[in-house]
Amino acid sequence: MLKGLPSLERLVRSLQNIPYLASKNVYRVAMHLMESNEKDLERFCNLILDAKHKVKKCQNCFNWCEDGNLCLICAATKRDKDMICVVESWHELAAIEKAGGYNGVYHVLGGVLSPLEGIGPSDLTIDFLVKRILQSNITELILATNPTPEGEATANYIASKLQVSNLKISRLASGVPIGSNLENMDRVTIYKALSCRRPF
Amino acid sequence: MLKGLPSLERLVRSLQNIPYLASKNVYRVAMHLMESNEKDLERFCNLILDAKHKVKKCQNCFNWCEDGNLCLICAATKRDKDMICVVESWHELAAIEKAGGYNGVYHVLGGVLSPLEGIGPSDLTIDFLVKRILQSNITELILATNPTPEGEATANYIASKLQVSNLKISRLASGVPIGSNLENMDRVTIYKALSCRRPF
Repeated sequence: MLKGLPSLERLVRSLQNIPYLASKNVYRVAMHLMESNEKDLERFCNLILDAKHKVKKCQNCFNWCEDGNLCLICAATKRDKDMICVVESWHELAAIEKAGGYNGVYHVLGGVLSPLEGIGPSDLTIDFLVKRILQSNITELILATNPTPEGEATANYIASKLQVSNLKISRLASGVPIGSNLENMDRVTIYKALSCRRPF
Repeated sequence: MLKGLPSLERLVRSLQNIPYLASKNVYRVAMHLMESNEKDLERFCNLILDAKHKVKKCQNCFNWCEDGNLCLICAATKRDKDMICVVESWHELAAIEKAGGYNGVYHVLGGVLSPLEGIGPSDLTIDFLVKRILQSNITELILATNPTPEGEATANYIASKLQVSNLKISRLASGVPIGSNLENMDRVTIYKALSCRRPF
């Protein structure tokens, strides 16, 4: 398909390294780039490098920030600094913020423990979280990693690391999602919803 | 979601202009770019600009080419130059090449006529196709635009433009795809397959 087009092939290979680009779309994205005019492409490249240059990780919680060393949430005076919600990545943080109802601060792990992929505790920001808790007056920790095997293992690991300190640790409730249908739900979710049932 | 991150917001807006990037994936692609190291990003930008600089359109058929003014197919001595297969875009050309069995040359229209989107004959390479046919010894023209209303209209328009010249014009056969199931096929396809039935 890319016979005789070496520089296009190099670009397609580079695009294939970007996750979440379905294999057919890689060609379509490359074609879109080739059909854009040169000025727009230069502007696009400048935007990438400019964002890379300016967007940094918050020194406190590892959320993205652009001005100064703290993100908007850590810098906000109205947020409750005694409560930390631990999330896997920025996407989960954004989802919780969108849902509303949480007024504490966050800690972005940067992934989950995954021995198969070679991701150990030192690849995540767990040590910073432990240090952050020991150094300040954190009273509650919400482990909001995803309810996947890796997310559960990561939550367990973090909880075991913090057994010493006098800290209220909780995990997001698992169960049947609102608006769903028991008939179409997987049996692990139903089992979990049954075993974690709450008084009406 | 992008509050307080103006340069990231500009990048996401720019990525949203790329078609075939599903809305959620735009954020994931932006995050992937932010998490790449600066050297990789500079290399990626250089690949884009380098490909844009080198990849051109074939002067004859508007397929992509990189060395010289002709694409590999137009430059090939073994291809039959008397037969032109007219396709909408490079993707359809690649699909036909992959299927094999065609040894002629191509003409890439660059799209289809679409009054609703404001795409008229002057936005496509139809005039170049007419000139190309009048100037050379083309004997057969295969109109291989997609069997959509726009594709059919474009094929009709091209055929009407070339009524004068003594040229064999054909259209790709429409019917039931190989390996499919009549039960699951839409009625227009079945009607077309019936009306275009061929002797066994």
